Amino acid sequence: MTIPHISPVKDESLAAQLDRAINNKTKPLGSLGALEALAHKIGMIQKTARPEVREPAVLVFAADHGVVAEGISAFPQDVTWQMVENFLAGGAAINVFARQNGCSLQVVDAGVKHDFGQREGLVNRKIAPGTANFAQQPAMSVPQCMEAIECGMDLVAELPGNVLGFGEMGIGNTTAAAALMHRLTGIAVADCVGAGTGLTPEGVLHKQRVIEAAMALHADAQGGLQALAAFGGLEIAMMVGAMLKAAERRMVLLIDGFIVTSALLVAARVQPAVLEYCVYAHCSDENGHKRMLDFLGGRPLLNLGLRLGEGTGAALAVPLLRAAVNFLNQMATFESAQVSEKSE
Amino acid sequence: MTIPHISPVKDESLAAQLDRAINNKTKPLGSLGALEALAHKIGMIQKTARPEVREPAVLVFAADHGVVAEGISAFPQDVTWQMVENFLAGGAAINVFARQNGCSLQVVDAGVKHDFGQREGLVNRKIAPGTANFAQQPAMSVPQCMEAIECGMDLVAELPGNVLGFGEMGIGNTTAAAALMHRLTGIAVADCVGAGTGLTPEGVLHKQRVIEAAMALHADAQGGLQALAAFGGLEIAMMVGAMLKAAERRMVLLIDGFIVTSALLVAARVQPAVLEYCVYAHCSDENGHKRMLDFLGGRPLLNLGLRLGEGTGAALAVPLLRAAVNFLNQMATFESAQVSEKSE
Repeated sequence: MTIPHISPVKDESLAAQLDRAINNKTKPLGSLGALEALAHKIGMIQKTARPEVREPAVLVFAADHGVVAEGISAFPQDVTWQMVENFLAGGAAINVFARQNGCSLQVVDAGVKHDFGQREGLVNRKIAPGTANFAQQPAMSVPQCMEAIECGMDLVAELPGNVLGFGEMGIGNTTAAAALMHRLTGIAVADCVGAGTGLTPEGVLHKQRVIEAAMALHADAQGGLQALAAFGGLEIAMMVGAMLKAAERRMVLLIDGFIVTSALLVAARVQPAVLEYCVYAHCSDENGHKRMLDFLGGRPLLNLGLRLGEGTGAALAVPLLRAAVNFLNQMATFESAQVSEKSE
Repeated sequence: MTIPHISPVKDESLAAQLDRAINNKTKPLGSLGALEALAHKIGMIQKTARPEVREPAVLVFAADHGVVAEGISAFPQDVTWQMVENFLAGGAAINVFARQNGCSLQVVDAGVKHDFGQREGLVNRKIAPGTANFAQQPAMSVPQCMEAIECGMDLVAELPGNVLGFGEMGIGNTTAAAALMHRLTGIAVADCVGAGTGLTPEGVLHKQRVIEAAMALHADAQGGLQALAAFGGLEIAMMVGAMLKAAERRMVLLIDGFIVTSALLVAARVQPAVLEYCVYAHCSDENGHKRMLDFLGGRPLLNLGLRLGEGTGAALAVPLLRAAVNFLNQMATFESAQVSEKSE
């Protein structure tokens, strides 16, 4: 497997050009706040002072997790495939928000424990029918992990647009994501685990104990890819590949919630420059997400108390990306509009 | 002048129906966070379990402020009319965001110190060429104040849609808004004043002193409308009327930043039920806005560090209103999608 080469976005001349363009718009200096930083970032990623949001896509990666055998989820495992059916039928939250905001949507079976057969609209990249239970053994073999990453890279190689939102579905995947978070950030397990789809406080404590016990079992899985293989899941591994390829292609990576950000922790361990291509769509209500974002230095656009996954936060943030490039491309300057500047 | 009658939105049966509809959607309970509260609120306002966002409008009210004579703004007064010209030419931030998010835009001259002549696209409701300097005398006479409120009511009576975003333009209007805030909330003037379009810390302190001195001059202007007449401005008064009429018509009031919220403080003093129709688009970076929102018990949708006014935050929040009604109308239920529910 060849890990994509990701260029840093550094270009001092373009950065200065973007700053000038933003500051000359008819508004008080800095008064568009986070949208100004966003316009600047998208310009740098796209290497232009006239950036655009073109054919944004959301990829939803679904897979199952063997660790559900430990009783770490509030919903039964069948909900993974049932929700995939819901995606295909157009009835899930991500369908609604992607449609509304003009994002194409692809649903990828990265490893769901269910036979869908040949289905229109479902991208079949099933590596295995779910991971193994990481409380007892590695979630995946190293070849499975590599295959999932390569599938993610391949999927992104074909996308037509320049913005990619990441989403996921997988009962049990907040447990895998919390394990990855602890291993890759060193933050205490208690601060990495959360209620997921709705655990009781006792349930969260049990999840914490399961992860703590697994840390000893996988004590030697310290690198990004080793930790990924040890804890899973297949959808997280596929997102890692997709992120690396998207950054290589200079797309804007629109990072959703807790699980997507855990994939980014892995991708950034492999290729730190991937972070320069990321826009953080929102801060989830899942305990641990804010700490993850802080660890990465990521400032989220939205704070709506979402904790749904599926890429919903990413799809909801797309209008803000459009607002950022639109103000940069469409607003008048003080000079063009003959508006007086600030008195000194 | 007849103050509109505003009905409370209370309807226990509909509230329960909305809760059930929201909770039966295929998602963990509460996982759409603020969007769930928003869908509920819009449903209650529109008296239906299938609410919609129809023909959202943004009204931008522009006016000048005599208090600029005290040197309280970073920009010269001419910027008010120059920015109105910019609105008419389509080059301001509010033009960009309203276009992007499918909002109609009306620009209202409530009292700009400039002769625009007859201009296509400009709604002429000029009460006076700016207010008087409230550091020396009342900003408006009581009849002027009443006329402005009635104009605001009339404008809203004709709108076709069911969502109304409020915006404003007026060099000096953060000073009027801060004075209103202090008088109507009792919060210390130092916590009401901010940098506006970009004052230095010395400039902010001067602004504070100007307002503090004016409080003694207008010591008897304690009621909402008395304070409004004392401190201004004409655009704020017109917004008060527009808000009251919009709530009477059961529209969703989309509240923008510091100045718009100051108008709401006045409207709520006159008719407290107006607050039940408000959605708070964002928390501005203007010092004092967060305290204003806290005073009103308002939770903003966006926190982007905006401090531009014009209704920009309101226009940017419209996609979130659409997301709220869309998930409620379009998502499958656990039953319809045959998705298993949470294990108990």
